Amino acid sequence: MSVRVRLDLAYDGAGFHGWAAQTGQRTVQGELEAALARIIRRPAPVTVAGRTDAGVHALGQVAHLDLAVAEVARLAGRSDAGLAVEPLARRLNAVLANDLRVIAATPVGEGFDARFSALWRRYRYRIADQAFAHDPLERGRTWWTRPLDAAAMAASAPPLLGEHDFAAFCVPRQGASTVRELMELEVQRIGPGRIDICVRADAFCHHMVRFLTGALAAVGAGRQDPAWPALVLASAHRPSQVQLAPAHGLTLEQVAYPPTDPLQAAQAHLSRRRR
Amino acid sequence: MSVRVRLDLAYDGAGFHGWAAQTGQRTVQGELEAALARIIRRPAPVTVAGRTDAGVHALGQVAHLDLAVAEVARLAGRSDAGLAVEPLARRLNAVLANDLRVIAATPVGEGFDARFSALWRRYRYRIADQAFAHDPLERGRTWWTRPLDAAAMAASAPPLLGEHDFAAFCVPRQGASTVRELMELEVQRIGPGRIDICVRADAFCHHMVRFLTGALAAVGAGRQDPAWPALVLASAHRPSQVQLAPAHGLTLEQVAYPPTDPLQAAQAHLSRRRR
Repeated sequence: MSVRVRLDLAYDGAGFHGWAAQTGQRTVQGELEAALARIIRRPAPVTVAGRTDAGVHALGQVAHLDLAVAEVARLAGRSDAGLAVEPLARRLNAVLANDLRVIAATPVGEGFDARFSALWRRYRYRIADQAFAHDPLERGRTWWTRPLDAAAMAASAPPLLGEHDFAAFCVPRQGASTVRELMELEVQRIGPGRIDICVRADAFCHHMVRFLTGALAAVGAGRQDPAWPALVLASAHRPSQVQLAPAHGLTLEQVAYPPTDPLQAAQAHLSRRRR
Repeated sequence: MSVRVRLDLAYDGAGFHGWAAQTGQRTVQGELEAALARIIRRPAPVTVAGRTDAGVHALGQVAHLDLAVAEVARLAGRSDAGLAVEPLARRLNAVLANDLRVIAATPVGEGFDARFSALWRRYRYRIADQAFAHDPLERGRTWWTRPLDAAAMAASAPPLLGEHDFAAFCVPRQGASTVRELMELEVQRIGPGRIDICVRADAFCHHMVRFLTGALAAVGAGRQDPAWPALVLASAHRPSQVQLAPAHGLTLEQVAYPPTDPLQAAQAHLSRRRR
């Protein structure tokens, strides 16, 4: 009898070699699982929505894990824990360094899967393209560039939307598809010297947001025509002019899931308790 | 014949032992003057609007220095430089580390003094008072606290406004007055789990914003009554309950100067050129 727990996470990617646990490297998964093991006194593997690259930040990363009801009860400090997994967030935050925070720990239905239930992921890429906008306090999460033509960048985006094989904008992983549905690719000048690129897709292949950003930046710098990124996409081959935008400009902001039916969730909870 | 130059500066205070140059310490003034000396090839002392403490950030710090017209001409790469001091910002930014940026370099009238012409200084103190708002990407400039009652904090502010002797909220400097005019002290809940304190005064004595914030935080935590900060002010003595809020939550956002009369500025420029 177990309780599935959703963890909402935020982290500063600068201090991590990405999400995935690697021996001898400080990673988000490694730190989180070590903290979990310390608190619940057993290995506790987590499943994540999006495996971020080294240096990439997250404000809305989601992971899940399963706890035995007895473990939840112990966390809550009482014998009938119900679904009081909220103390887990506080306990984890007390153990974790402050570049990784558990924003929330919530009980979810057993059908919830942080990775496979996700409807889409949304990332933001932050650019400061004027020297006067190079804010030292934001330097850890902003790509400082020369002036870019945001309107040209925005003009190149629409033909990329929809379902395509994004092989040209990915580092392929053996056997994995590179077909993705790009739902949003919005380039916005959000203030003097500041450009944000919002990207939303059902899922992303490896380096996809950073290669898309690199292609748009080549357009913004006037080195390529706004029609060029669509040509690259169609060619299914990445030319050297598509540079990989630096990791530190990128933040995973949100992972969306189907709305939970409260009645169904309550029934699932009850049936779990009766088991 | 010289040109007075205003420098607008932004810095992440984390890497500096404050503004003021100190032997053997990395300071903002030390880094800036070293970069200036390297570019204009002589010692170039600067005058600053507000000497920030170690760890305090700035988005709108202002300093001034004087350049010989021949130095400006050399910077601009032509013999008649006019007032083309703008290349100075680019040259400085190329030399400085990226935690200190020159946002602008502009020629000003010789009557301009970064310190003595300032009408007021405005600081912002950022607080995240809920664990879910402890954003790792903002941790370098936000004080993470337990939940605070922002309304109680705001209620304690009005009696502090106006001209008072702020001795109770300052570390006094020998011979220096602690009388200041507090023009604004606004406590705002700007979002779930986030409180900003905006403080504006003609000038600040040492640690004044951080002690005021510490006093308000004691009210917000329910340890003191909203009437208490005004009693502390009137007593001219700082009780131990007024704690010094951490430096990293504080940012100097703006220094205001009298509006420049464009005609007068042009005349000053012409008369300088005729001299």
